[in-house]
Amino acid sequence: MTTLDAAFSALADPTRRAILHRLTRGEATVMELAEPFAGTMTQPAISQHLKVLEEAGLVVSRVEGAKRPRRLSKDGIDAMDQWLAMLRKALEANYDRLDKVLAEMESTKKGSRK
Amino acid sequence: MTTLDAAFSALADPTRRAILHRLTRGEATVMELAEPFAGTMTQPAISQHLKVLEEAGLVVSRVEGAKRPRRLSKDGIDAMDQWLAMLRKALEANYDRLDKVLAEMESTKKGSRK
Repeated sequence: MTTLDAAFSALADPTRRAILHRLTRGEATVMELAEPFAGTMTQPAISQHLKVLEEAGLVVSRVEGAKRPRRLSKDGIDAMDQWLAMLRKALEANYDRLDKVLAEMESTKKGSRK
Repeated sequence: MTTLDAAFSALADPTRRAILHRLTRGEATVMELAEPFAGTMTQPAISQHLKVLEEAGLVVSRVEGAKRPRRLSKDGIDAMDQWLAMLRKALEANYDRLDKVLAEMESTKKGSRK
């Protein structure tokens, strides 16, 4: 599996997207990340999702005593972002082309009315 | 499965990303999309990948006689893009914060040297 395969696959799960959303507010421990899911998901389940996110290069951790706070990983997120930027640019270019075609059709129509 | 689940899941496959990449150059039929994979993948296999991309809202088709040319779907791509923009903005904000912290550490160091 390439990095992009793993990264996009990791985002296909709503719990993992919720974890990343929480990390946009800053570093958090597993316990803090598990809080919003209390009653619906166990801490080991959250740890498993974190493992998937770390292996996909979207989250990194550091050691602080007994804690291992997690944060977003710029490199992995940038890689996905750049890939999607390619699609976004193509869509913008297509729209520009469409505008041109429509403008030409419009001027032809006006021409034929003369 | 939500739309974002399906969209990110669809991107987790290199063949589907290659199909989207090809569509950045404009509309294409299944036959045209299958060309670069000749010998490695059958046309039905490509059709199956297209079905996944269409169900995920990333590709749309139109009818032109017996052909059904496919093109990128702005709405589905925009939805993913907006979700990733949230992560990107958070990373930028975090970097700005880090810059401030480092600048403060630096000025404290200079202060203690006096």
